[in-house]
Amino acid sequence: MALADDIALANALADAAGAAIRPFFRARYDIENKADTSPVTEADRAAELAIRKLIEAERPRDGIIGEEFGTTREDTSRVWVVDPIDGTRSFIAGRPIFGTLIALMQDGWPVLGIIDQPISGERWVGAMGTPTLFNGKPVRTRACRDLDQAILATTGPQYFPGHLAEHFSILGGQCRDTIWGGDCYNYALVASGHVDIVVEAGLKLYDIAALVPVVEGAGGRMCDWSGEPLTDASEGNVIAIGDPARLDDVIEALSHCPTC
Amino acid sequence: MALADDIALANALADAAGAAIRPFFRARYDIENKADTSPVTEADRAAELAIRKLIEAERPRDGIIGEEFGTTREDTSRVWVVDPIDGTRSFIAGRPIFGTLIALMQDGWPVLGIIDQPISGERWVGAMGTPTLFNGKPVRTRACRDLDQAILATTGPQYFPGHLAEHFSILGGQCRDTIWGGDCYNYALVASGHVDIVVEAGLKLYDIAALVPVVEGAGGRMCDWSGEPLTDASEGNVIAIGDPARLDDVIEALSHCPTC
Repeated sequence: MALADDIALANALADAAGAAIRPFFRARYDIENKADTSPVTEADRAAELAIRKLIEAERPRDGIIGEEFGTTREDTSRVWVVDPIDGTRSFIAGRPIFGTLIALMQDGWPVLGIIDQPISGERWVGAMGTPTLFNGKPVRTRACRDLDQAILATTGPQYFPGHLAEHFSILGGQCRDTIWGGDCYNYALVASGHVDIVVEAGLKLYDIAALVPVVEGAGGRMCDWSGEPLTDASEGNVIAIGDPARLDDVIEALSHCPTC
Repeated sequence: MALADDIALANALADAAGAAIRPFFRARYDIENKADTSPVTEADRAAELAIRKLIEAERPRDGIIGEEFGTTREDTSRVWVVDPIDGTRSFIAGRPIFGTLIALMQDGWPVLGIIDQPISGERWVGAMGTPTLFNGKPVRTRACRDLDQAILATTGPQYFPGHLAEHFSILGGQCRDTIWGGDCYNYALVASGHVDIVVEAGLKLYDIAALVPVVEGAGGRMCDWSGEPLTDASEGNVIAIGDPARLDDVIEALSHCPTC
């Protein structure tokens, strides 16, 4: 299967998810809490079902891992990884900065990723060996000469387990500004060169997989808090950085804890 | 001067500010830090100048208080209060959830307020005695039966001085979810019935004035952390609540501090 064909399908998947999501935005719908207390809505489910239906029709032998409906044919070399609404809390609150995440994993590594914002009509597409596109145009991360020039973003203090919020606060104190909220949208803004660093903890595979091709295809880098490639052992502790020259500074800052 | 004429002018001011801001969004421009370390950009200044020019032309006897260019004719009964970009950090990061705030104060009380998001084309207009309008259509806050059903929003933990972050965390623990970031956009979402509570601290007059008519015209209430009307003595410690029946619960939660 040529990568261009997979990119075309991924775009169609994002189109289908957006069409499923838009009628629910700022409308009335049921909200449930999942076992991990995170909320899920009819919109999350409708979007993931729309994506799964299209994958089953177009790539019936590929695997699928979705946030809401689990795993289908995981033991294949090609697996689609889907988070229909990353930032469900933001979606519920009526903020247009959530996103649909779609990745294609090849032999365990994401070779294609989409971050789609279906309300504002913004889409970032990253694919191995090609520049990341924002609404069809190439984007690049920006240079960052020093941490004190950096904009750091993360979704919320409550998502850092244990002492990790304190580690994060050391980094925050060294950066120009820390902005909060945003989920996957922050990573898209790193790719487009408006945000310099995102640091989060405890993310799942479906939160991460699509981000990697988008950020790295724009010149940035993603790794764990030790600078190692993201694997199951990373426990979802993620750094995304626009200027890899500042990565050592971020790792150094995150290694400290004021009270540990 | 009829209120309808002032509303028409306020809409024209928001239009002018949006036209000044849009060319800078996600573009390159200078960023300075002000004495309070908050950032200011060419876009903030261009938008406030556009607003001031129009007020001087249309209401030359009215006073003006603006975040960037200070006070003109403060000792008049009618004073326009302007924050050209509330959420400058969000603007700089390329997020479309900042806002232009425009209020008209009559004898010290805001009788008219606009929250305008010039990238998404979203505008909330509140005026004494009329229902709040979102892009021309009336909106209402929503009912909230219990705090454990409430979505609580605030811009960031670093904006709570002293122990106030701990007071806030008690409230957060009693609410369904806390979402972060958003600045004035959170108050607009209260007016539209998507967010239940916003709690912040240390806001300035130009951060607050426009919010009051928008939130209260939609059925909500704004007050300080003790439930008192917002005055200089409030020190910018603000509660905005969609369902006033939950206000006592919020005040009770905010009165506790785990370590004080």
